Amino acid sequence: MNAALNASSNTLRFLTDTSSNGVRERDFLVSGIPGVLWSPADDTGRAPLVFMGHGGGTHKRWPAMTGRANLLVSQCGFHVAVVDAPGHGDRPRTAYDEQEVAALFAARDAGEPEGPVVVRYNAEIARRAVPEWRATLDALQELPEIGVGGPVGFYGLNMATAIGVPFVADDPRITAAVFGLHWPDALAETAKRITIPIEYAMQWDDEHIPREAGLALFDAFGSTEKTLHANTGRHKELPRFESDSAARFLARHLAS
Amino acid sequence: MNAALNASSNTLRFLTDTSSNGVRERDFLVSGIPGVLWSPADDTGRAPLVFMGHGGGTHKRWPAMTGRANLLVSQCGFHVAVVDAPGHGDRPRTAYDEQEVAALFAARDAGEPEGPVVVRYNAEIARRAVPEWRATLDALQELPEIGVGGPVGFYGLNMATAIGVPFVADDPRITAAVFGLHWPDALAETAKRITIPIEYAMQWDDEHIPREAGLALFDAFGSTEKTLHANTGRHKELPRFESDSAARFLARHLAS
Repeated sequence: MNAALNASSNTLRFLTDTSSNGVRERDFLVSGIPGVLWSPADDTGRAPLVFMGHGGGTHKRWPAMTGRANLLVSQCGFHVAVVDAPGHGDRPRTAYDEQEVAALFAARDAGEPEGPVVVRYNAEIARRAVPEWRATLDALQELPEIGVGGPVGFYGLNMATAIGVPFVADDPRITAAVFGLHWPDALAETAKRITIPIEYAMQWDDEHIPREAGLALFDAFGSTEKTLHANTGRHKELPRFESDSAARFLARHLAS
Repeated sequence: MNAALNASSNTLRFLTDTSSNGVRERDFLVSGIPGVLWSPADDTGRAPLVFMGHGGGTHKRWPAMTGRANLLVSQCGFHVAVVDAPGHGDRPRTAYDEQEVAALFAARDAGEPEGPVVVRYNAEIARRAVPEWRATLDALQELPEIGVGGPVGFYGLNMATAIGVPFVADDPRITAAVFGLHWPDALAETAKRITIPIEYAMQWDDEHIPREAGLALFDAFGSTEKTLHANTGRHKELPRFESDSAARFLARHLAS
């Protein structure tokens, strides 16, 4: 297949183009930000896009990303895109990034709550990432198989919820979103402005995010149609079946 | 098809036997209690049974019952049984039933909370219904297409959760259960003894059951694997997609 190569640094430039098990996978750059676009290998015309985000300390090809992307492409026929967040994956860390990562490990080593560091650091990452995500979505919609005006959903937990809430709140192109696993502190006010359908995941026995905090962020969303999925287990024990649920939620709202 | 007719009043006696759209439907009596058994129309050997219960003021053929039964038979290939609760459907009301129903309507007319009446009345119905449900399950398991020792799930919201919690707590044959939409007052202590996988539905804007009460009952279950589904909307606005979710939950735990 022919990868479209665009010269402008503002537009999307594909670096690779491979297919496996019915899923086409293309590495791309938008304004120097590296990302991956997964698509149905069979060219079936325009299809909805799910914009995903990865969690803190991981990257665009983390198993949770590739697993969810394969699910959404194979079961729903959607396109799925994810880019490395600032300071993550193939992107350099700033001195501030290094300082906050050190603060996080220090809190962890001291047995102190991670929440204050994560909330503060993720808010700063969101400030940097939201314009990048908007530019990436602009560029992806220029592709004929996605298209301007086509359905767009969002799927991001943990740090991707910290970026996703301000991203989704100010981008009317996104019409359904899966969030979860975050504190309300820096997000609740912005979440009130989100009115699209929401599925929100929390862990009932989260050792980092108090139960009341998870419930408070879910409660804050302004959406008339929102669903909370709370599962037993600790922060990193979100059951695999929640990915299937998210795919069904996105299919319900994005598929024509 | 030949309906098995048993003479003993303790065993199951079929009254009707019809099939439509791949679903076989048989009215039955066990010790005078009327019920319905839905099954795959194609005899495919033994299959899991889902024991369902109807809500307060409704009956075994309420649309929620027939809808869920059709879903579970068609999509999962399960058998589904439901019987009329005491004072409901084809069964007579006692003087006590009449008195509690009048108390409920009086509370409703006066704009007073329905909770205290419903909690008290449902606890009394449960006391009468649990032995009936146990006897019905005994009789259903004598059928070769269900079988003693085969997988059994439970699915019941509202009043059926009030009956289902004590039923499931003391019946080790049931290995997965969908509950929801009830107060914790008469149930939380018993729920602590339930350790099988649970899916629990609550309405985030329930005008009868306070949010904290719904969360408290979910929290009470002793299960290490349990999921809360909380949806926006009032008491009777449980989204239709929760039936699909319940079917997938039961399929995950009952199908071999």
